[in-house]
Amino acid sequence: MKNKPEIEIWFDFGSNYSYLSVMRIEELSKTAGCQVAWRPFLLGPIFKSIGWETSPFILQKLKGEHMWIDMVRQCKKYNLPWAKPTVFPRKAVLPLRVVAFAVDTSWVAEFCRIIMLKNFAEDEDISDPLVIESVLEQIGLCGSEIIQKSLEPENKLKLRHFTETAQELGIFGGPTFFVGNEMFWGNDRLEDAIEFACQLK
Amino acid sequence: MKNKPEIEIWFDFGSNYSYLSVMRIEELSKTAGCQVAWRPFLLGPIFKSIGWETSPFILQKLKGEHMWIDMVRQCKKYNLPWAKPTVFPRKAVLPLRVVAFAVDTSWVAEFCRIIMLKNFAEDEDISDPLVIESVLEQIGLCGSEIIQKSLEPENKLKLRHFTETAQELGIFGGPTFFVGNEMFWGNDRLEDAIEFACQLK
Repeated sequence: MKNKPEIEIWFDFGSNYSYLSVMRIEELSKTAGCQVAWRPFLLGPIFKSIGWETSPFILQKLKGEHMWIDMVRQCKKYNLPWAKPTVFPRKAVLPLRVVAFAVDTSWVAEFCRIIMLKNFAEDEDISDPLVIESVLEQIGLCGSEIIQKSLEPENKLKLRHFTETAQELGIFGGPTFFVGNEMFWGNDRLEDAIEFACQLK
Repeated sequence: MKNKPEIEIWFDFGSNYSYLSVMRIEELSKTAGCQVAWRPFLLGPIFKSIGWETSPFILQKLKGEHMWIDMVRQCKKYNLPWAKPTVFPRKAVLPLRVVAFAVDTSWVAEFCRIIMLKNFAEDEDISDPLVIESVLEQIGLCGSEIIQKSLEPENKLKLRHFTETAQELGIFGGPTFFVGNEMFWGNDRLEDAIEFACQLK
């Protein structure tokens, strides 16, 4: 059996437009006959290497203000819950380490969606180990054990490696999609990326 | 008879994503039952007030590189011709002054489309008066007369006023759409803006 074409989603849980794509990608891909490859990375070091100390939505005030209005509209369009986070961008190293640990599991997509909802619909602190543990328990896993494994040096290196790879690939923001060597930037290009992947079938 | 709802398109001929919207907006609006209000402005002063000496696609190298790939794909998607301009961003003060002069004419939309094609499909210098004159002649007008009127002090002030208004409205890039007080940024939001306008009917 030929493998299904793969779409990689490169994202950080702190990224608001990544929220839209993380919530949508699995269902869209399933319908189209693709499979999703989860690629967690830290946006912070990427921004720093461009010369930015934080998110462009903080640095560019007008763009940032418009983004919050846009997010309300986009969530309405996609029928997704929304509450503006009181902290932005939220640090997300711990849940991203869990994703790095979990990339090949059956539960990674669900974990990603619940963490995104915690940040962008429930305004919870997604760097709090208790929040992460409860999310893991919620999907029927042993939270403390997975957190422990995610914090092992080898897995910390795995997330660092993803971030270095993101930089080598020329990624400059999230979400970014890759289909083979083709890069698509932003939630607005998710459908285009999936359509491109389908042409490879 | 109640007026049709209006969608304002704020744009600069040098802006590549404005090319996509300028080519698409009239037909989409007509189908939806809206009318287009053309709002030319200079992106240069807007970028300068943000602290940028030129287009963010020049200043942010990775983003700029991806943009050229994205433009090829977007033009294919919208069935628009495309040739990467050898000069970017092109200065467009003269054709924007013509638009400022022509905002209420029946030929403004066609003029805008032809100028955009000159820049993004034919790689021509759209600040050259001979190019502008030939475009005006092509749509059946007296080119030299309209250029002369566009260069009168009162009309130069009109374009300056549009740019100042863009700044007051919080516009930070092109294209930007306004429906009443609601702002929509980017070609990717054109359909959303038109849908919003239709709800006002």
